[in-house]
Formats: sequence, structure tokens, C-alpha cells
Amino acid sequence: MTKIVIIGGVAGGASAAARARRLSEDAQIIMFERGPFISFANCGLPYHIGGDIPERSKLLLQTPESFKSRFDVDVRVMSEVIAINRTDKTVTVRNGLSGDEYDEQYDYLILSPGAAPIIPEIPGLSNPLTHSLRNIPDMDNIIYAIEMNQAAHATVVGGGFIGLEMMEALHQRGIKTTLLELADQVMTPTDPEMAGFVHQEILEQGVDLRLGTALTAVEYNGREPVASVDAGEDDSGQHLLGHLQLTLSTGETMQTDLLIMAIGVRPETSLASDAGLTLGPRGGIQVDTQMRTSDPAIFAVGDAIETLDFVTGDPVLVPLAGPANRQGRMVADVIFGKDEHYQRTQGTAICKVFDLAIASTGMNEKRLKQAHIPYEKVYVHTASHAGYYPGAEAVSLKLMYAPDSGKILGAQAVGKDGIDKRIDILAVAQRAGMTIEQLQHVELCYAPPYGSAKDVINQAAFVACNIRSGDIRPVHYHELGDLSEHQILLDVRNPGELDAQGAILGAINIPVDSLRERMDELPKDKEILVYCQVGLRGNVACRQLNHRGYTTKNLVGGYRTYRIAQQ
Amino acid sequence: MTKIVIIGGVAGGASAAARARRLSEDAQIIMFERGPFISFANCGLPYHIGGDIPERSKLLLQTPESFKSRFDVDVRVMSEVIAINRTDKTVTVRNGLSGDEYDEQYDYLILSPGAAPIIPEIPGLSNPLTHSLRNIPDMDNIIYAIEMNQAAHATVVGGGFIGLEMMEALHQRGIKTTLLELADQVMTPTDPEMAGFVHQEILEQGVDLRLGTALTAVEYNGREPVASVDAGEDDSGQHLLGHLQLTLSTGETMQTDLLIMAIGVRPETSLASDAGLTLGPRGGIQVDTQMRTSDPAIFAVGDAIETLDFVTGDPVLVPLAGPANRQGRMVADVIFGKDEHYQRTQGTAICKVFDLAIASTGMNEKRLKQAHIPYEKVYVHTASHAGYYPGAEAVSLKLMYAPDSGKILGAQAVGKDGIDKRIDILAVAQRAGMTIEQLQHVELCYAPPYGSAKDVINQAAFVACNIRSGDIRPVHYHELGDLSEHQILLDVRNPGELDAQGAILGAINIPVDSLRERMDELPKDKEILVYCQVGLRGNVACRQLNHRGYTTKNLVGGYRTYRIAQQ
Repeated sequence: MTKIVIIGGVAGGASAAARARRLSEDAQIIMFERGPFISFANCGLPYHIGGDIPERSKLLLQTPESFKSRFDVDVRVMSEVIAINRTDKTVTVRNGLSGDEYDEQYDYLILSPGAAPIIPEIPGLSNPLTHSLRNIPDMDNIIYAIEMNQAAHATVVGGGFIGLEMMEALHQRGIKTTLLELADQVMTPTDPEMAGFVHQEILEQGVDLRLGTALTAVEYNGREPVASVDAGEDDSGQHLLGHLQLTLSTGETMQTDLLIMAIGVRPETSLASDAGLTLGPRGGIQVDTQMRTSDPAIFAVGDAIETLDFVTGDPVLVPLAGPANRQGRMVADVIFGKDEHYQRTQGTAICKVFDLAIASTGMNEKRLKQAHIPYEKVYVHTASHAGYYPGAEAVSLKLMYAPDSGKILGAQAVGKDGIDKRIDILAVAQRAGMTIEQLQHVELCYAPPYGSAKDVINQAAFVACNIRSGDIRPVHYHELGDLSEHQILLDVRNPGELDAQGAILGAINIPVDSLRERMDELPKDKEILVYCQVGLRGNVACRQLNHRGYTTKNLVGGYRTYRIAQQ
Repeated sequence: MTKIVIIGGVAGGASAAARARRLSEDAQIIMFERGPFISFANCGLPYHIGGDIPERSKLLLQTPESFKSRFDVDVRVMSEVIAINRTDKTVTVRNGLSGDEYDEQYDYLILSPGAAPIIPEIPGLSNPLTHSLRNIPDMDNIIYAIEMNQAAHATVVGGGFIGLEMMEALHQRGIKTTLLELADQVMTPTDPEMAGFVHQEILEQGVDLRLGTALTAVEYNGREPVASVDAGEDDSGQHLLGHLQLTLSTGETMQTDLLIMAIGVRPETSLASDAGLTLGPRGGIQVDTQMRTSDPAIFAVGDAIETLDFVTGDPVLVPLAGPANRQGRMVADVIFGKDEHYQRTQGTAICKVFDLAIASTGMNEKRLKQAHIPYEKVYVHTASHAGYYPGAEAVSLKLMYAPDSGKILGAQAVGKDGIDKRIDILAVAQRAGMTIEQLQHVELCYAPPYGSAKDVINQAAFVACNIRSGDIRPVHYHELGDLSEHQILLDVRNPGELDAQGAILGAINIPVDSLRERMDELPKDKEILVYCQVGLRGNVACRQLNHRGYTTKNLVGGYRTYRIAQQ
């Protein structure tokens, strides 16, 4: 009888347990969870804080009892595994309530310990008004702190998924919120110019966004306890009353009532490394494509491990729920003899930021540059569905591909509608090894409420193929900074658009529809850098000019990309 | 100088003209359009009738003037090409206003005549209250008829895209509506059990849906003209006052104030066939993969042509806007020397039916059967995004794949949220040649507002792979009709679900969570056909039983699929 011991009862661990039972009725399966809950909706925590999910109970997807009756899994909560004893194939478990310790034998051990919030070494961080968010007790503590301290201002440090979601949750509760981010952008899986749309949205919503700003010190100022028997306050709550004085890297100070630390997560590897399991170069547990650690009886899944990047094959840390769930399921397959292999990670991800969604898959431009991988990129901005049907919103899409093979390297999108769909399509296309040429031909659902006869996906492929075939020479927004004397800028939009949207300093304005008559106003001995609002009319203008002997480049993604990248 | 003549100024024709100009500034491009409008939003017509698009002008995307100034295309509306004279490479054009005729020479001719509504030979159909919907004048006529006749009841014949959209539009205007459909289902690109969800929605909205019912005769009863000078009625309007008496194939008669004929479309091939161009077996214009007809100087695109089915390679008629647009663009590429080829047609399509969307790609089961193509199918029903986040709706998905290769043959989905996304993903996966094994690994956007850690796509692939690997033996809803004495039905849902949802007659009920204790109530010498609500718990139950020596099959898609298929 196979005995499987699982450490960690959330995404990867719970998936492994359920799948293992489906594959074997005889196996003994024990799942240890350090905290009080298993299989809770960790991605839902900010939405309960913000009020979108009013019922806390909805976040508790399974209980030890339901897991027992459905899957005959022996779930032991409040049970921390404190050591792995590889030679005798046991783990040492400490009961978090009684403090008792005992050993449990395993044939196979599955590590699904997750990743813990990184808490930087900032003076004064340890105080009752500073929290991070990983699990249900963390969530409860944050809500308790908000309510007991009647927080009027909150500060979130870190503009990643959790930081952005917490920013929105707090703002939604009517709490004035500051978001501090050390980098020059939030949502680092995307590139800065795409994150620019998010910056704009955050500012428009009234959040105090501070990029390029670090938190350097925290001072907790507790107030005198004020008993409020009517409100049901007890002693434990009263110490929360107070505020924090924050010092920032800019030298500024600010006062806040609640501090959320969300600068990132770090794989939980102490158990694994104490047991002598090999860690990878990025600090995660190293596994093979079957999720096997350096000990063949021990597997590891989820946020604690390193997987291989889909494009480069390099080890990466990708703390996302989807991969964790599939890895957990796959480990059970492997233990029971199926020849399954994990197929690398694209890191497809999405984040809701107020009315916007921002999503990405594959490599971003920053990483392509770092890895010295040749790439070309296109930007398109087009409506999420037929523009004449109500509710259409702009989809801003960035697609990166290999100039030699035409294969998709990565994609990012941002907008208010249809963002998940476009990145999902490109994630599947990338995984399938599609080229931009093949992407032109994809047949997507079209009816006015859902799409366009030429979807943004087709359009991005058309633009990319125009560049790859040499029909259009591209210029990018970051190349407009220092024009040579042999270059001029031509804005082919209508004058009304220039007034409404702004324009690039020094550009000549000839609307595309007048270009044929006014072409001789342009010099033939200079390179003409053409732009319109999103790139379509620029393309039309470049073609006209090329056919008449002018040298042109088209600003990819047009003024819309240029402008957002300047912010 | 190349001279290109285009017949038809909507999707395919307009795309060809615009692309041709981008590829050549020197070409002479003439576009003939029989009607008064070019490049109008034909897919938007029902939504103006229904009121979703209040401004008629939004449907007019381009004008002859805008096409002239942007693309230097000589657009001639109200100009019907009445003959193609292949030997001298001219077309004969009749001016619809003056009646004058003239010839115009071409180097290349592009046919984009579209498809016309099929008007069956039913006695009495020719009357002022009977309309079909193809273009702006048709739309105007329908609105005029509704308003002048103060239509209180309307009848739509045909449950395809236009029929369904017109049904909704009329219903939305407060007009009591009957939908007649000869087949046993609407939306024939999908299979009947998937269309069942649409039938349910149509009935719930209060539309009088009559499947398996044909219109056999129409009698127009005009009333006495009632002058209403205040309402601005003129003579032309007054003859509309009246009603129609419809006779149905069931022998019933019914009275209606407006009749919309939407039983399908037929490729407009008379010009082509009169000119001796080869037609294909389905009655469309035959073209090669570069859209070239049997005359190398003549190309054809859009609803008038036959393309090759993605799976079978057989000629098919696919009157959809997306293919028409891409074909139009491609013809210009081919004329100007690019080696582009049309990559077959999957027929990806979607229709909004009140709050539902129903969509499909690739082959459906009916066609797979007809073509004797081996297939297996799975059904999954799961939430459009994390169930604990507000707004999640059931996605009902059907996936068909080749049992030998595992390749995707087709897919259908229906539900209130995320339907377009799922079919788009599967359309791309099918086009890329992905197998169900590869589909397990796709990484899709996940955050609670947008998806699930195990998306419906992954789940469908998991179920399919469980079947393909032999871990689960499937049984389908249509196989439950005549059980042998060696089979029994086991319902593993909770008793409360049976009360609320109903159950299959004769099934034993043992909830999955009690199955381990009560397993010995089941006979080992019979095949146990297990079902739950959607198939997940059935899978768990089958595994338990199999491991204990029982023979089982799991009802794919569970009771939800079974029940909708019975309707």
C-alpha cells in the first residue's frame, strides 16, 4: 500500500491529494497543513477585504471533513512539518495546538509549502498596524485592523498582483490609499509603457501612486486606549488605535493608519534545504519535469519550486495558482506511473485594477533584452468588439515575436473589456508554436457584441507581417527622442485630434486623407517618421509615400503608445 | 498600370480595395456596388432594429467619399454589374438611377457579390408585410413596416444567426414574437443538445418557439387605409396596415403583423455562372487557395464562394464576415505578387440570444457522423470564473476530438459569460493542431474575476485525457435510453439535488461522499452507469468503484447534459 504524505493543503497539495485518490483507492494519503484551513481561495482574499465577496465562508472551498468523505484523505490542520528525515523516509510533525511532535512515515512525499511574503529589513516594521496577506488569518487581521483602527488612510507597499488588489480593496472601502512602488512601474510582468495605462487608471481613481519610491522607516505611534464598550471592543483590539509615521526614500514622511507589505513572495524552502534537497539558482526547490526533487521519493509543486521558462528554458519562479494546481495533479499521475511531464511555464497572468484588466503571457521586453533574445514588437489599439455596438472598449495589445522564425515570444494587453480573451488566445498560440503568419489566419468568434471581423489578434498579426515582409519599416516610441537632421516627423491625424490628444513637438501635420494632394510639401531627401493615433492611418500614409519614392517609417502603435509611454 | 475592378462594396470587396491601394499607389481601382451603401455594418442591422444601436448612421462605416480620399478608390454605388465579358476583360455596368449601361475594362476582377436570402416557394409570400434582412434598405423597410403597421405580433421563419437576432430585436421592441424552425433545433452549426440551452432561454424570454414547424402558406389581409395625418403617414405607408394569416406544417393557422424570412442564404453566383466560371459542388463559386476562380484574371471572395473545410478539406459554404474580410485582403496580396494562401475555414461563429451566447468552431457532431469521421466527445459545465467571485455563470462546453490522434475536431459552448473566449481558445488550438494532451497544459489568465485556476478548457482536456487513457469509460446521454438487464444506473448526487433538478428514472441514489460505506449495496456482476450533475463526482465515484472491482461508465457531462438533451 502506497503511503503519500503531502505538506501543504492549498492549491498544489490539495490537487495532488484529490488526484492521487482518484488514481488509487488503496493508497494512504495524509495531508499536513500548518494553518487552520485547507483549500481556501487565496486569490479571493483581497476581494473579501474590499467587499466584492461579502461572505467569508465562500472562501473556504473544502474542509478536512469534506476532503475525508470525498477523497478519504487524512487531513491534519494546525500540523506543521518541522523536519524531513530522508534516510528513514519520515517527516516530523508538530501539532500547533498541543505542541506535541511525532514522526510520520512516507513512501512518497509531496512538498507544497508555497511562498511567503517578503518582509524587508525596514526599521519599525514589526507593529500591529503592518500586515501582509497570504491566508485567511492574515485577511481576518487586516479587516480587524481596519475596523478597530477606523483606518482613514492606508499605505500599500508593492505594485504587484497582491499590492494592486489590496490597493483597490482598501480604496473600495472608502479608505484613502497610497501605493508605493520602488520600480518605475507597477505590474512588472508587463513592460512600463503597458503599465502606463494602469498608472493612469490608478491616478484617475484618486489613489496616491508613488513610483520609484521606497519605504525606509516606520514608526508606530499608539494612542491611549479608549474604551468603547458599546462597540464591543475588547482589550486585544484597543492597542490597535494609533497610526504609523512612514519615511520614504524621497525623504518625505507621511502618516498612515494601516500598512500592507506586498513587495513580493519568496519560496518556502527551509524544510527542503534543511533536508539537503537541491535548490535552484533562483532560490526555489529544484525539480525535474516530473516535479521530482533531488530525492526521487520527494516531489515538490507550486510557488516553492523553480520551473523552466517557456521561451528560454531557464529556471524561473512563477508563483501562480494555475501552474500549482496542474503540477499537483501531475505529481499524482507520476507517482502512479503515468509518464507525464510539465511543459514549461509561460507565466500567463492577469490583474484587475479598478475598471481595467492588465494581462500578459510569455516573455516581456525587459526580459528579452536581458536574455539578449532578438525580437520585434508591435502595438495595436482597437475596439474589444464592433465599435458600433454598445460597450466597445479599447484593447491595447503588445505582441513580441522572433524576427527570424516569426514565433510568438510574449504578449501583453490592457483595457476594460476582452483582455483575458486576447491574452488567452495568444498564450495558446505561443504554446502551440504558432508564427505571426499563422496568427493572421486565426478564425475567432465574431458577432457585434463579442468581436470584430478583423479582431485585434488578426490586426496585430497583420502589422507584424507587414513589418516582417518589409512592406513597412517600423519606428518605436523610444526612438523618437533624438531625431537626426535627416529625419522629420509627420502627423497624419486630423487637426481636431491634435487639439484633443496632443501631438509630438516638431511634427508636420498633413491629414492622411489630404496626403496625396499635399505630398510635395514633404522632402524626399529625409526619412519621414509617420504617426497617427494608433498606427493604421500611419500605415496607409507610409504606403502612399513609399510608392512615390519617399523613405518612411511608421510609428508602431501610434501616438497612443507614444503618449502613454511618456507618462 | 494595373486596373482592378471589384464587384461588391461590403466586407470582402472593401477589404480588397483598401489593401490593394496600400500595396500599389499606381493601380486603378474601381468598386461597383449595386446598392446605395458601401462598407456598411451588415452584422449590426438587427441591433438597430432592436434598439441596441440607436443611431442608424453608426452602421455606415465608410462612404464613397471617404474611400476616395483615404484609398483613392473610384466607388460607384447604385451600379450593378450585369455581365462579365471574359474574352475582352470587361464588365457591363448598369447605372441603377439612369438605367444607362456601359462597359469597364479590368486587368483583375474581384467578385464579392455575397449571398442572398433564400426565399422559398410558399404561396402568398410576396406581400408588403414580409421581409428579409440583408442590407440597409431591408432594415429601413422592416422598421417602417413595424412602425406603420403598429406591429403587435411578428413571426420569424428560421433559427439561424439572422433569425435569432431578428427574434430578439423584435421581442426587445415589445412585439410578441413567434419563431418557426423546420429543424428540431435552432443554430444548426451546433448540435441539438447544445442548442437546447438556447431553446430554454428563448422560451423563458416568452418567445413562442416552434421547432419542427414549417410555414406552408401566407395570406395577406390588408385593412382599409386609415388616414392619420397627425402621425405624418403618407400614401405609401397606408397600404401596410393589415395582417398575415400563416398556415403551418402542423395544420395550425396563426395571425401575424410582420413576417421575417430568415431560412438561410444562397451564394450570388449568377454573374459568375453566366460568365462560365466554374461553380463548386455546394453551389458557390469555386476558387483555389489563392481565391482565384477558373479564370486566372478573376478572383472571388466571401459568402459567394466555396472554401475548404478545416477538418475534411471538403468544399463548404461559410457565409461569415471574418473569412470574407481576410479573403478580400488576401486577394490584393495575391494580385500584387505575394504568395499567400487561404488556410481553410473552421467556421468559428457566435450568436447572442438574449442573455446567452452560443458559439462553435470546427466540425459539429452531426457533420462528423455524416462524414464517417471517428470522434469522441466530452461535455463539461463549469463556472466562467472563480465561483466565489460575483458574476460567475455556467459555461457548458462540448469538445470533439479524434480518438486516434487526440486532435481537436470541433467545439461548442453556450452560457452567459466567457463563451466567446472559450471557443476562440479552442479555435486557435484546433488550427494549431493541438491534441487534447497538449490542451491540458494551456496556461490561461487566472484571477477570480476572469477565470479559474483550472479553467473549463483545462477541465475538458482532463476529462478527454481520462477517457483516452482508459481511466474512465464514458457513456453518453443518448445511450441511456435502452439499458440492458446487465446495466444499472447510479446517481451519486445528494438527495436535495434530485429533488431540485430531477433524476433519471430507475437510478439508485448513493451520494458520492457515502459511496465507500455503501458500496456493497451495488452488484458486482452488472455494469454501473454512474452520473452526477456535471460529471466530476461521477468521475470520483467511478474511480472508487473501479478500484474495488466494479465495472463502471461515467455519464459524460452528467445530468445537466442529459436533461437539456431531453428537451
